[in-house]
Amino acid sequence: MPDSAKRIAILGSTGSIGQQTLDVVRALGGRFRVIGLAAGRNVALLAEQAREFRPEFIGCSSLDGGDERPEALADLEGEFLSLEDIASHPQVELVVIATSGRAGLSPTLAAVRAGKKVALANKEALVMAGEIITRQAEQSGGQILPIDSEHSAIWQCLAGEKQKAAQLILTASGGPFRDYSLAELDEVSVAQALKHPSWQMGKKVTIDSATLMNKGLEVIEAHWLFKMPFERIRVLIHRQSIIHSMVEFIDGSIKAQLSYPDMRLPIQYALSYPERLPNPELPHLDWSRIASLTFEPPDLERFPCLKLGIEAGKKGGTYPAVLCAADEVAVELFLSGRIRFTDIPRLIERTLEQHEAIAQPTLEQILEADVWARERTTKQVEGR
Amino acid sequence: MPDSAKRIAILGSTGSIGQQTLDVVRALGGRFRVIGLAAGRNVALLAEQAREFRPEFIGCSSLDGGDERPEALADLEGEFLSLEDIASHPQVELVVIATSGRAGLSPTLAAVRAGKKVALANKEALVMAGEIITRQAEQSGGQILPIDSEHSAIWQCLAGEKQKAAQLILTASGGPFRDYSLAELDEVSVAQALKHPSWQMGKKVTIDSATLMNKGLEVIEAHWLFKMPFERIRVLIHRQSIIHSMVEFIDGSIKAQLSYPDMRLPIQYALSYPERLPNPELPHLDWSRIASLTFEPPDLERFPCLKLGIEAGKKGGTYPAVLCAADEVAVELFLSGRIRFTDIPRLIERTLEQHEAIAQPTLEQILEADVWARERTTKQVEGR
Repeated sequence: MPDSAKRIAILGSTGSIGQQTLDVVRALGGRFRVIGLAAGRNVALLAEQAREFRPEFIGCSSLDGGDERPEALADLEGEFLSLEDIASHPQVELVVIATSGRAGLSPTLAAVRAGKKVALANKEALVMAGEIITRQAEQSGGQILPIDSEHSAIWQCLAGEKQKAAQLILTASGGPFRDYSLAELDEVSVAQALKHPSWQMGKKVTIDSATLMNKGLEVIEAHWLFKMPFERIRVLIHRQSIIHSMVEFIDGSIKAQLSYPDMRLPIQYALSYPERLPNPELPHLDWSRIASLTFEPPDLERFPCLKLGIEAGKKGGTYPAVLCAADEVAVELFLSGRIRFTDIPRLIERTLEQHEAIAQPTLEQILEADVWARERTTKQVEGR
Repeated sequence: MPDSAKRIAILGSTGSIGQQTLDVVRALGGRFRVIGLAAGRNVALLAEQAREFRPEFIGCSSLDGGDERPEALADLEGEFLSLEDIASHPQVELVVIATSGRAGLSPTLAAVRAGKKVALANKEALVMAGEIITRQAEQSGGQILPIDSEHSAIWQCLAGEKQKAAQLILTASGGPFRDYSLAELDEVSVAQALKHPSWQMGKKVTIDSATLMNKGLEVIEAHWLFKMPFERIRVLIHRQSIIHSMVEFIDGSIKAQLSYPDMRLPIQYALSYPERLPNPELPHLDWSRIASLTFEPPDLERFPCLKLGIEAGKKGGTYPAVLCAADEVAVELFLSGRIRFTDIPRLIERTLEQHEAIAQPTLEQILEADVWARERTTKQVEGR
């Protein structure tokens, strides 16, 4: 390994984004050195990754402080640390936050406070605590580098521009049910919902893509990442998932970023920024196979989650945290077969309605709202 | 006018690009001061423009040195100078070269030699003498800022990128005859050829768009502007003229620039660069009216001018100058009803075949090749 290799830590290394991050590191051999790896329940894969990459620090969020290491991790060489300690360790230059849901919030804050470059795939962190995280980043010099393909696209389009954007246009594939009627949506199965038309992703984000909640969360994420008022962020259904998002500038000129849907590209861009690196494993667009790119407005009646997301973002305070928590619970309930697909927005909406929000909340208040929303959403179903 | 106004000269102010440049200056009131105006035969409009903008320098290429000023220009206040003297005048910061054909070559060189910012719409200058002009610019610190919408798109997409592009993708509307058979192409009238499906432009460039010669010239222009090998420049037919061109980077990521086809945007970008300025007169894309963007490969059999252009560019030397000259004559012959539309590539091809090329020519040799090609192309028709 050359000494110039960028020292990175990957939190959530056994998930979809984590594994693809390691694919990128392998493909770009020598440019990055993985000095920290952390995961949750999948200790077998974590152990395998640790044997391959020999990180100095290993984290396992499913172990509580006092627990013995499980057998799978027993003979590993690295030092065991909490996710927060890895994220803020002086030796780490860039932290990839590839956890999902609430789990990424605390390590993200720790990394940002320590002034790290934070390649962020865990959108819930910014949705729940965007104001706190971005303020911390400004104070500490930490940098948030988006990994979501839409935000990576916007970030790439903003490169070299001296002025703020006039409008952000987030594209959405529309998910597997974009052509379903309301009645058909009522009947969709878990298996159907897990078949995304263009992206290979984790289960939670795949269901969020099918409900368009994912796009609602991304609107909130874009609001914080690019300091853009909600009125200047719009969503456009683009079935082919080739244009990943667009930016309109004050002179009316628009820039778009395009590629085949492959998360390794935005992951790599966040790792290599401000450089780009050649990676023979990344696909190149074949224009002889792209006859047309289509655009249509999203249907908020069939996909109310998008509206719920944007509204919660506009209201601010603890609402986005409640949105995230209620969505996480509702998606789990759907995946376990306990509610219908169309119950997801209903549950979330009811929880949001019952929430007594706090404006400009502290981190503790955000986490309290999260706990409240999880209980509230679960009870709605149990109460039936 | 604030003192900070950018002092610009517009050569070819009465043509389509020249008039639109003045529209932009009017719309952005105060940001630019027109201190030079020059035109050719349309002295009435030149006089009108001079009365409105009160430039310090006026040029009229249809006057020879010793000629008396025509009556229309007699009472104007500005000093009369040659186009070259205006282009290189110490008071001028940025020169817009909005002339067409060979006329722009000498003033472009003069401006570049004087280290000016040169907003270049006159693509023939770079096609004929790309090597000389770009070498001069490197030596003098002059900057060539493209006004062609395709090259402006590429330039915008390259902003902020640290590395060279991997591939340039020039889009082409395909012109009014993109769906015509070879037999139908044989019969098209001048009026049909002058109806471009998406752009309002001058006659020469409109015919060049219908034959796709325009795209061939643009490939050569892109080669010089962006120092890109011909093998890495491709052309894609995109009927809607919304994506103006694209750049592929070494990681496979592509950026595209989009807008309604309106030359005022690339003109303004060249004037305002590196800033962007709000201009309420420029249209903004209305996504509710854009259902799809289509892409298809160009048909080199029906549109041989594209192939002739790229081949002349690859061969280099005096070939591109011969290409330009033969095309200019052939287009004039078509416009005057003396040859058919499909004779345009035939004439150009024959002239190119008969040319004895010079590698790395001097400016004089380029101009000699130009004169030879004009005579040769004219004689081909007269000889019939």
